[in-house]
Amino acid sequence: MNYPKGVRPPEPEGRKKAIRISPKGTEANRGMDFEADINASNEWYRSHDIAIVTKRPTPINVVKVDYTKGAMITHAYFEKQSTTDYNGVYKGRYLDFEAKSTRSRTSFPLANIAPQQIEHLEGVMRHGGIAFFLINCSLIGETYLLPADWICRFYREKPRKSIPIAEIKEHGFLLKEGLEPRYDYLKAVEEAFFPK
Amino acid sequence: MNYPKGVRPPEPEGRKKAIRISPKGTEANRGMDFEADINASNEWYRSHDIAIVTKRPTPINVVKVDYTKGAMITHAYFEKQSTTDYNGVYKGRYLDFEAKSTRSRTSFPLANIAPQQIEHLEGVMRHGGIAFFLINCSLIGETYLLPADWICRFYREKPRKSIPIAEIKEHGFLLKEGLEPRYDYLKAVEEAFFPK
Repeated sequence: MNYPKGVRPPEPEGRKKAIRISPKGTEANRGMDFEADINASNEWYRSHDIAIVTKRPTPINVVKVDYTKGAMITHAYFEKQSTTDYNGVYKGRYLDFEAKSTRSRTSFPLANIAPQQIEHLEGVMRHGGIAFFLINCSLIGETYLLPADWICRFYREKPRKSIPIAEIKEHGFLLKEGLEPRYDYLKAVEEAFFPK
Repeated sequence: MNYPKGVRPPEPEGRKKAIRISPKGTEANRGMDFEADINASNEWYRSHDIAIVTKRPTPINVVKVDYTKGAMITHAYFEKQSTTDYNGVYKGRYLDFEAKSTRSRTSFPLANIAPQQIEHLEGVMRHGGIAFFLINCSLIGETYLLPADWICRFYREKPRKSIPIAEIKEHGFLLKEGLEPRYDYLKAVEEAFFPK
């Protein structure tokens, strides 16, 4: 995590409009909790020598640096990630994915996904990489792996502005949750991309 | 590039000590030129649908954000990359590498490489990824791909504090330079990792 609790880069429109109904915290905070859990899962995979998956740091556009104060940045802005948040290597294969959290009980708004993320994941698939989304439905308490080919097709065809949760359940792979790793998403990767 | 010309995060010790003898600019600037050329090569590979390789943004530790000024960061510091600068996918395989520039005509100082980068690349190799260094010898005008297994072994055994250029020439793969892509490092990846 490269920003302190409560500080995070701007979200795509879909999330900003979400209504805050939980007393526990803001939508952004919940997204950060999910991100922190994925980061912890990645650290568990790394320390158990199962895979190496890292989060791309949030890109920051640095405008001004004060060298009299030990290269302190005094003026900068968060930028949007032009690709996805996570990539890495598992069993020699390239993995690339985006982790998203939604509070909706009915659907996942496509506005949560930036067009350049779709393009990036389509490119990854053309080059033989494993591409997917992890969608955390925080109020339902379930998280699904959705292969990127399915999401990208849905996005390109845009039958709706959001993906019904029923379709996520039908086409996705439910993640096993636990203490360690918090989200065993590589088990779902096995199911989805390494069929027996 | 997430920082303007002339602004860059602190370098490992080895480079700081380099003597500036060229009137063209500082050591840091030259490192940035090489980085910019690799970024341009990656963009060429992407636009020609050959591979997807991206630079990890420089991690920044954000201390303070002014929300009254549109989420302007007013206090932050550059952090050291805990992994490498570049990773991506080529022919389904995971690629991971670090790009370094040196002005020395005789050797490449190992102090340019952080211990956690060696650990990271060793992990990548254990998981079947393709790991290497691109070493730009700017005064000689040559750039070499060195497989990470060779560099990591050299680093672990530390027969010297730097790698003689003669050994880099012997064990490395000379990059073809041109207009587009500026550095055709995937040709060297083919030679080194996809032997006919």
